[in-house]
Formats: sequence, C-alpha cells, structure tokens
Amino acid sequence: MPDKVPPLLSDLLATDADVLDAPSGRRTFLTRASALSLAIPGLGAALTACAPGGTGTRDSAQAGTGRGGPGGAVAGADSLRHQNSNSKLDSAVLKGAPHGNSSATPDATRGAERATFRRYDPALPPLPEGGRLQLHWHAREVPVRISDDTVVAAWTFEGDIPGPVVHCRVGDTVEFTLTNDVAVPHSMDFHAAQIDPKAAFRSVVKGESVTFTFRPKWAGGFMYHCGTAPVLMHIGSGMYGALIVSPREPLPPAKEFVLVQSEFYLEEAQGGVRPFDYSKMLATMPDFVAFNGRPNQYVKEPIRARVGDRVRFWVVDAGPTHPSHFHVVGEQFDTVYLGAPPATPIRGVQTFTVPAGGGMCFELVCDVPGEFPFVNHGFGHGQKGAIGFLVVEG
Amino acid sequence: MPDKVPPLLSDLLATDADVLDAPSGRRTFLTRASALSLAIPGLGAALTACAPGGTGTRDSAQAGTGRGGPGGAVAGADSLRHQNSNSKLDSAVLKGAPHGNSSATPDATRGAERATFRRYDPALPPLPEGGRLQLHWHAREVPVRISDDTVVAAWTFEGDIPGPVVHCRVGDTVEFTLTNDVAVPHSMDFHAAQIDPKAAFRSVVKGESVTFTFRPKWAGGFMYHCGTAPVLMHIGSGMYGALIVSPREPLPPAKEFVLVQSEFYLEEAQGGVRPFDYSKMLATMPDFVAFNGRPNQYVKEPIRARVGDRVRFWVVDAGPTHPSHFHVVGEQFDTVYLGAPPATPIRGVQTFTVPAGGGMCFELVCDVPGEFPFVNHGFGHGQKGAIGFLVVEG
Amino acid sequence: MPDKVPPLLSDLLATDADVLDAPSGRRTFLTRASALSLAIPGLGAALTACAPGGTGTRDSAQAGTGRGGPGGAVAGADSLRHQNSNSKLDSAVLKGAPHGNSSATPDATRGAERATFRRYDPALPPLPEGGRLQLHWHAREVPVRISDDTVVAAWTFEGDIPGPVVHCRVGDTVEFTLTNDVAVPHSMDFHAAQIDPKAAFRSVVKGESVTFTFRPKWAGGFMYHCGTAPVLMHIGSGMYGALIVSPREPLPPAKEFVLVQSEFYLEEAQGGVRPFDYSKMLATMPDFVAFNGRPNQYVKEPIRARVGDRVRFWVVDAGPTHPSHFHVVGEQFDTVYLGAPPATPIRGVQTFTVPAGGGMCFELVCDVPGEFPFVNHGFGHGQKGAIGFLVVEG
Repeated sequence: MPDKVPPLLSDLLATDADVLDAPSGRRTFLTRASALSLAIPGLGAALTACAPGGTGTRDSAQAGTGRGGPGGAVAGADSLRHQNSNSKLDSAVLKGAPHGNSSATPDATRGAERATFRRYDPALPPLPEGGRLQLHWHAREVPVRISDDTVVAAWTFEGDIPGPVVHCRVGDTVEFTLTNDVAVPHSMDFHAAQIDPKAAFRSVVKGESVTFTFRPKWAGGFMYHCGTAPVLMHIGSGMYGALIVSPREPLPPAKEFVLVQSEFYLEEAQGGVRPFDYSKMLATMPDFVAFNGRPNQYVKEPIRARVGDRVRFWVVDAGPTHPSHFHVVGEQFDTVYLGAPPATPIRGVQTFTVPAGGGMCFELVCDVPGEFPFVNHGFGHGQKGAIGFLVVEG
Repeated sequence: MPDKVPPLLSDLLATDADVLDAPSGRRTFLTRASALSLAIPGLGAALTACAPGGTGTRDSAQAGTGRGGPGGAVAGADSLRHQNSNSKLDSAVLKGAPHGNSSATPDATRGAERATFRRYDPALPPLPEGGRLQLHWHAREVPVRISDDTVVAAWTFEGDIPGPVVHCRVGDTVEFTLTNDVAVPHSMDFHAAQIDPKAAFRSVVKGESVTFTFRPKWAGGFMYHCGTAPVLMHIGSGMYGALIVSPREPLPPAKEFVLVQSEFYLEEAQGGVRPFDYSKMLATMPDFVAFNGRPNQYVKEPIRARVGDRVRFWVVDAGPTHPSHFHVVGEQFDTVYLGAPPATPIRGVQTFTVPAGGGMCFELVCDVPGEFPFVNHGFGHGQKGAIGFLVVEG
Repeated sequence: MPDKVPPLLSDLLATDADVLDAPSGRRTFLTRASALSLAIPGLGAALTACAPGGTGTRDSAQAGTGRGGPGGAVAGADSLRHQNSNSKLDSAVLKGAPHGNSSATPDATRGAERATFRRYDPALPPLPEGGRLQLHWHAREVPVRISDDTVVAAWTFEGDIPGPVVHCRVGDTVEFTLTNDVAVPHSMDFHAAQIDPKAAFRSVVKGESVTFTFRPKWAGGFMYHCGTAPVLMHIGSGMYGALIVSPREPLPPAKEFVLVQSEFYLEEAQGGVRPFDYSKMLATMPDFVAFNGRPNQYVKEPIRARVGDRVRFWVVDAGPTHPSHFHVVGEQFDTVYLGAPPATPIRGVQTFTVPAGGGMCFELVCDVPGEFPFVNHGFGHGQKGAIGFLVVEG
C-alpha cells in the first residue's frame, strides 16, 4: 500500500489552460509532479509522460475534430504522426480535472438513483458487411448499476462497462472516431491496431475528437481501453472493452461468447453511488471482479448452448491488474489458441491464464447437458464476482 | 482488503433445517444474503447460487446415499441431472454451519495436540488394475499438523491436506463416492470429469453421500476440490488434491512426482490449532505457501532420483488464488507440456506458470548429481514454504 | 501481511564465527530459527536450509578463492559437489549480519548523496569471441540512484541494479567467479547453468570467492540472482540480472534489447537513502516496478529503432514476486517463443506473461513509425514505473 495518502489527482493535473501554451508550462508541471512522485509511487514518472508541451496540442485535437465522425476521411498513421509531438503514452490534453482521487465527477454521479440494471449481452455480434466498420463513440461519464445494490461512478465508452463489443475479420477496415463529452481528457488505445500511439491514441479534451483507421493484422480477442494517464485510473474506472478479430478462414462453427474480466476498486457509497478509488487500484485488492462488468450476472441469467454445440469463449482480461485463470466446471477445453487463431492450438486444458491486458480464445464441445459454471479459478478474485453459468440443454 | 469486517459465515448460512423445505426459505435466504453482500464483496451472489429451493434437495441427497460406496451402480450424467434442480455452482445443502468466519468447527479442532507431523508422499501412485478405480472418500474435518509448530483446523478429503493422489489413464473408469461425515455441507469437483456439475458436484449434508462416475478424456495433472459455496472457503480450508491422468500411450519412463501447491490463510492459534481465515483468503496475502500441504517438508526430507533419470513433476496449483512459477534451481526443464501430454511440448524452460486451478507436467533429465531446490520462484510466496529439494545421486 | 512484526534478520543469522565450526552450532541455530518461524512465515524452514554444518564451510570457500578470477582453472560440477556438504538452497556461510530487517548495511548507505543517476543500457551486448566468457564479479553493497529523487540501499552484483547483462551462445563456456566484498554472505545462481547448486551456488563470506563453469544448453533469456537465504531478501534488494543465450543458428537479424522487470519494496528515506524492506516484500505490494532498475527511465530516454527493423525484446522477470504482462502499445508481437528460441513460436500476440523467475523472447516488426510505449499491462504494477518508449523513426 502506498506509504502516504495520495494527493488529489486535481493537484497533479494542470488546471490552467495557459499551461498548455506557456513556454514555462512543461517545466512547471514537471516540478509539481516530481514533488509529488513519492506520494504515489510511479505516478510522478507517469505524469512526466503526460506533461504538455508548448506546441500544437490543442490544435491537433481540433484537427482531429475536423475529421471526426463515421465516414470521415481515413487518416493513415503517417499523416497522423506529426500532429501532437509532445504527447506520449497518455497524450494527455490537460484541462480542468476537478475529480480528485476518484472517478466521482459530476457527470459520473448525477442521476445515480435512476441507473437501472441491465444484463450485458455476451454474444459475439455478427461481422460487418463489406469488411468495413465505422465507429463513432463518445467518452462519457455516467453512473452504471453493476448489481441490485451497487451503482458505480463510471468513466465509459458509450455509457457502459465494458464498452461495446466490436467484431471484424483480419484485414477489415476499422474507421474509428472518439468524441469526448466530458471534462476529463480521454483517449482510445486499440490493442488490435498497428499504429503510432502518439497520434492515434492521443487524449482529447471535452468537445473534441480524434479519428484513426486501422486494419487488424492478427486474429484474436483484443482489449481496447483509454490510454490517458494515469492509465491505471482510466482502465480502473471503466474505460475498456473487447475487439474480436476473426481469422479470414472461418474457425469451426460455434456459439461464440465474449467475456471481459475486470476488477472494481470502490470507495464507500456517496449519495447512492460508489466512486472508483485510485489508491485501492494501486493496492491491487479489488472489491469485485466481474465478467462483462456485473459481478455474477450470468449466475442469474446464464449463457446457453445445446448438446453438440462447440462453444467459443473469447476471454479478454482488462485487469487493470490481475490475470484470469479461466476454467469451466465440469468441462475441459478442447482447444485453447495460444497465438492468433487458428494457429498454435493446445488441447485438453482445464484452466489457462489470460494475462492482464491480453485475450485468449477457448473452445469446448458440449457433449453432455448440465449447468457448467465458468469462473476465474484464482478464487480470491473469482469469489468476488467472476462466476457465471453455461447451461447446456439436451 | 474488504471495507468492512465480514459477517460470520453462520450469519450467511441458514441454520434452520426448515428453511430447506419452507416455501419462504429461499426468499428469506436471498434477502439475508443480499443485505450482507456489500460486506463481503461477491459473497452475496455466490450465496445466491447456494440458496436452497423448496424441492427435493434432501431427497436427492438421500438418493445419492442409496447409490453410495465402491461398486455401487454407475450413474451416468444423464441420470443424475434431474436430481437436484436447485443446486448450482455450490449445490449447497444448508444445515447447521456453526463455524463462523473460520474453519474452526468442533471436528476440525478436537484433539489438535495429538496431531502428528507426517511427510506427504510425493510419489505418483501406480495405475489401477483393469482400468477401473473405485473410490469411496469421506469429507472430514480434522486437525492437521503442517509443521513442527503449526496445526491447522482442516476441512479435508480423507483426513489430510491435500487429499489422496489419484492416478489413472485416459479412458479409465473412475467410480467415486463422497460421504460427508460432518455438519458443514461438502461436495467434490473433479477437473478431469466431463459431467453435469449441478448433479455430480452437488453438496451433501452430514451422513449423506453422492456418487458419480467419469472417464477422463485428456491426460494431465488435474485438480479436484470441494465446490461448495463459498468455494474460496472450502478450497482455502484444505479440500483439494490431484488426479493425474496418464496418456494411453505411456510417456517416456521417468521417476514421477506430484506436487500440489497451495496457500494457507490462518488465524492465530486457539487452543493449539490455527483455523483458516476467510477474510485473509479474500485479502490474498497468505501466511504459508506449500507443496503438498506442509511448508518446506521436502527441505528436510528431499525427493530423490539418480543420475540419468528423467524426473517428471505433475504440478497442480490448488491456489486458492496464486499461481505457481515453478522452477528447479540448477536445472532447466527439458520438456513442459502446454496441453494434454504428450502433445504440444516446449523445450528448455527455466520457469513456467501453473495457473490457480490448473496443472502442468514438467520434465527434466538428471545429467549431473547434486541437490536441486524446486521452488515457486514468485518468492514473496515461495519464501513462505514453497521450497523443496530434489537430491540426485551419482 | 505477516501476523507479527518480523524479527531482525540479525537475530536470525548467526553472528559468532565459532558457530560455523562448533559441533553444537547447527543444533543451536536450528533451535533459534524454529522459535522464530511463526514470526516470519516460511522463514524458519528457509533458515533451516541455511544452517551451517560442522565441516569445511570456510575451507571450501577458501578453496574457491584459490581458483578465483578470470582464467582460473575450470571446476566441473563433479569436483565441486563435495566441498560444502551442509549447504542447501542458500548454502549460507553465516557471519556477522548487522543489517536488521532491511538492506541498510553501512556499505549500502554510505555516500548516498553522491550516487548519480545513470540510464541502464538496454542494448544486448555482442557475443564473446572464441565462445568463452570469463567473468569475475564482486558482490557489493552500494547506494544506487534509481530516479532523480530516490536512492536505494542496494545489494548488487558489480555495483548496479540489475547486474551486468551477459550474452553468449548455446554451448559456449562461461567461467564465473564471485568474490564477496561485504559482510553479508552472498552467492550466485545462474538459471542457465545445469550444475549442482549445493556447490556452485553456495554462499561466500567477505573476502572469499566461489568459482564455477557451465555451458548453457538451451537458448533463452535467463535470470541470474543471489540465492542466499532468505532468497526473497537477496533478490528483493537488487541482486539479479539477465544472461541471454542465443541459439547456435542465429535468429533473424534484429535490434535486440534486454529488459529486466523487478519490484522495489522500500522503507522511508533515512539520511537520503531508502533501504529495501523485507516485511514489505512478504506483503507483495511494491512501491516501484521498473525495467532495468529505474522506474520509467525509457520514458525520458527511449529505446530506438527504424522502420523495417525487427525488434527483439529479451524480457526477464526478476520479481521477486510478480509476473510481467508484457505489451507494446500500438504493436502486436509477430513472434513470442514459448520454449527455447527458435522453437515453439506463437504469432500475433498482444500481451504475454513472463513468470517471476522466468524469461521470454518477444519480437515485433516496425512497420510504422511512431512512439510505442512498452509496459507491464498489469497496470496496478505497471503504473509504478514499468513503462518505457520504443521510438521508431521513418
């Protein structure tokens, strides 16, 4: 656990827009971050990465806006790379971060009492027509009800945790635009994209957009997430999801499901909503661990298949920290693909580890009917909500 | 760490046998579990799974008893599946759980001063004759001495931690009966079985039995464990072990050993015995980590081989939470089988991770004599007892 | 977390040189270790292993000295194995350990204010000529500056964290001598060596040396570390590094880098230097996690390649406890070798786990220019400093 009480994030993030442009801004920021770096281990350096420079940051974001929206012009990695020469991992465009050490922004907490529980559909969506996906998503902060008695102050893509499941094939074209609707800077990092993160994954401020296009090169279950610093805070507060890339040559016919495992580190409820807690994220002991954002949701409303079906689980582990030791009670995996499917399968596996920030593809054949729990068999975490049921009907 | 002091398990588990039959029982139970679900994250939902319904639970358990014992009639998955329509992951049959938040039941603590230390034999037992194993085990709660100065209040299969090592071949028939000798409901989940967990892995109450039969489909080192909710508590209190399934076509001749890694989360000693502590299990920081249930037992009494031997370790990681980064000092693994042996071997490996709830098969060739420590190289855990010696004599 | 305040290591380590020779020494030591074994779980047994016997310990160390230094006579495993018949995992030669429960020895803290920050060169060094490496290293305790504002009281090989990167090929001869310059006993364990640890990896006291020779049998990124008990303390205080073994048949041409991930568990600064803290190591929540010993050093001074380059990362995870979920933002790994390269490659991987105490080889092809962060995507740890940049220039 951190030695000291961490400072408010608002202390660490520049709040004066002039900082972005003044030549002294970077130095001032670094000094501030450096002084605080002992308080949150590692944060100083992460903030180093997020220090803005004196040139072009806001212009580039505005340039991004100009290209925003579905069907906008496709910008290759090459054309993007010179737009934001000072951004790095986070590419943060800093401006007004009044949220303190938690996710409890006004947007993320307002109307919590009206948030309704909704089961997250685990079915893999169909492939896009014409090999082209046009996505225009919004970074939003909203209360999300993750169980009957828990609403969290969420940072999201498109208003949910996880964000939408995306499905395409190797070589398809994904045209993506992110518009930021809120005060905290946000960004998008697709693990399936081979692209310059400095430009494509840069942070955008409220009202601005970033657009980029990529063609996935490998099949697999890929994570996406907000990459704005501190990344732990942005992933930890709900900004992640799964992009499933099927191979060009279809895999064996199967019922396909997507499970995104993630951890929830929460403060006590305030006004009916529990904010995400950055200090607890650093201490790595979660309150809940869930598949698709709701602890145990598939216990009440299971996933269903029939005897004879091949079931394919695309398991993405969003973390932010812990892997998933994925297991199905009463079954063994016929196939786990270690690399991009259909290559390098292994057979006859009881449990395999999905890395934090990774994804794996698991298959089993429903030879017998029954109710088969799927779990994170690291039960200190699994017991906190990473349990569901696969019901196989005869 | 959980935000609040977790309630006693006795608060969470129904204590009135009438609950099992009264129509209001399920609703009452769920209300109670729901009210407590914030206190132990994830527990509410797990208990949802363990809520008994109004029909047939005890009858089905009694039906199980009728078929119990070695040589009893073999029940296929199909015939079992309708016996306990309200059981799920845990299939708990709730009745009198006066043990609080720890494993310190009267059975598990009585006579602790007489518990003697016994080295757990790591040798792989021989294959059964005729391709058939008949096992009639008892769920027992007994004090187990895990070191000279520590006795734990154990929940066990057959009175030891881990339970007995089982060995068979792919396609052999395993006829298994569990009889529960104690007040806490228990069950059996074999990772090597492809079977409906709802029926076969259901919980049974004191004096009752469950019987099922399976034929392992894949080779490997498979975990077994009690699957009664909360699973973390039942695994964490000692109810686990290894079933080793050899392929039909024998692997290269070798000296074969079985190592089950597990964690111990303990309260302070009370009357000479340390109960397992559910809160500490949720906090995932163990007091001890051991191979085959005794910290460092193979330091004092090593495993032995001779120069020229191939040594095969079947390493099963029972967790409940942490993986094993398995390594042998002074050696490299000639072969690690990623899937079911003999398929998908990799060569020349210093360390490989066995997932929590998983098993891997490691081989090395004893080219040189010496004393080779085998360890969990995640040393924050390994240092707590997951160290032993392989002595190779010239 | 340990239940009790751990005792000082000085209480656990014999301080009277006579203990080494007196017939009662071993028994006295064991009694002491046993009495304390509850206080630090697992330590008792580890110390059991480190209890000295009555014969030859110092003589054998002196014998080692006689053969010390580059170009000294090569001692095979066979000739070494009888020299220290009472040493085990640690082979500790105990003598004066006045450092308490931390790494703050006089040597490790003196002159901290003069320690300067130096980027650790991640480039893989060239192969040795003639297939022979002669290394004479010293175990030293020195203050090491790991960032602008943090100096740690380090136990080291050759004065740095990590120790020097070593590079050779399968079948080359590595002649190694360790001379201990300090009061705490130290030793060397090369994961790439197939050799009797009892002799080759034994501990040596101040002024003495140990020499051994080995020929790596497998390609890979291998960890080396001090194996003196408690191993967690010696790894945790900085005594680790990487030996990269290239296959005889060269891998595809690439820019090759070595990244050693490790954790830092630190006390508050005392006199300008932060000692490593054994209690925190046991609690497994690090203050920093770094590649090559300096949190975020490659954010400020990135690793560089050009478009068209194949980049090969040899990632060694020194732990002491946590794995590395290795990922490069904006890229996918073309190849990850699961076993000894070039065998068993997998393709198209976003993230793969390097076990604690293990090493993996990752390759990507720089198709597009940009700034690509490489991270431990287990962000509760990654955020603490396991972030760097790969800059690809067009």
